[in-house]
Amino acid sequence: MKDIERFEKQLAFIREIDKEKMIKRQSYITDGVTHENDAEHAWHMAIMTLLLNEYSNSEIDVLKTISMLLIHDLVEVYAGDTYAYDEEGKKTQAEREAKAADKLYGMLPEDQGEYLKSLWLEFEAQETPEAKFARTMDCFQPLILNDATNGRAWKEHDVRRSWVMNRNRNTALGSEEIWEYARENLVEKNVKNGNIIDDSAGS
Amino acid sequence: MKDIERFEKQLAFIREIDKEKMIKRQSYITDGVTHENDAEHAWHMAIMTLLLNEYSNSEIDVLKTISMLLIHDLVEVYAGDTYAYDEEGKKTQAEREAKAADKLYGMLPEDQGEYLKSLWLEFEAQETPEAKFARTMDCFQPLILNDATNGRAWKEHDVRRSWVMNRNRNTALGSEEIWEYARENLVEKNVKNGNIIDDSAGS
Repeated sequence: MKDIERFEKQLAFIREIDKEKMIKRQSYITDGVTHENDAEHAWHMAIMTLLLNEYSNSEIDVLKTISMLLIHDLVEVYAGDTYAYDEEGKKTQAEREAKAADKLYGMLPEDQGEYLKSLWLEFEAQETPEAKFARTMDCFQPLILNDATNGRAWKEHDVRRSWVMNRNRNTALGSEEIWEYARENLVEKNVKNGNIIDDSAGS
Repeated sequence: MKDIERFEKQLAFIREIDKEKMIKRQSYITDGVTHENDAEHAWHMAIMTLLLNEYSNSEIDVLKTISMLLIHDLVEVYAGDTYAYDEEGKKTQAEREAKAADKLYGMLPEDQGEYLKSLWLEFEAQETPEAKFARTMDCFQPLILNDATNGRAWKEHDVRRSWVMNRNRNTALGSEEIWEYARENLVEKNVKNGNIIDDSAGS
């Protein structure tokens, strides 16, 4: 080992991010009883990106997109998970997560800490094709799990159709094809069967 | 969606592999009480590869290596996890896993099923730089967790030094630098403190 100090910084970071496996999400995995955690969610989306990048609106750098998805929730190790429909939590989310990013990415050798932080900021900014496709995965994956578990998390939180549509307002920006499929086969299907509360006008 | 049949095959596979989150390993995560599962393990190694590929003996294709690590345990969805020190289970492991691979990868569109299966076979064959580095990660990551949890899984299974050394006989083939560090700072340290039973000659 030529630069032991560098390696030990990397190792400390690797040990620290293990905590991501303890950050529970609202979604249930397909056993219908276990809450998913952030690490599982990221792993699932990384494989989804390998398989589904052909549906991206624009060509994407697959390694960059997967890297972004693997790390995009790491700030929650310190900032905690903020549920998509937790309006109070979302008010302080950006500030909590920015602090967390400085602390966490500061553990790494400077070049790598800056790179991972820049990937996270790119995801948050939602401007590049990679960030847009990553967001599509981040919204599509919980739809799959919710649908597969008969809407358990939706029902527990009395989730409304308008909330889901608002949460997915940018899902088509990464992939129109995936959103077109998901809207009909995952969202509207679960509105019809009552797993999502129908609050649309005239209903 | 131009080819709905293709997309629905991909989606069925994505739903099926969710079961990887239910496959428990012997290792504990750093909380010291929760068994790690295969999905968490794969996620952790994917990020490790992003950070540590600079120590690979040979230059590697990072996307290919990460893809390999993300999927290399998927066969356990049907074949179950075989503990590294379960000599009985290892006798039937290859046959169980080959059957599982055919069933699982057969769910995907043919081009993607063949690609993922070829990545898994490449990992198993241990001939390419990517497969060797992936194996290094696969052996190094549980050493980190075992060390961080005061050797809990080692102690529960009365693990001997010779078992760990045998399990890691190829770890240096992916990265001599990482194995050199791990042998001294993770293995021998835990032999000295009694977390791994010292069965070396003359001891």
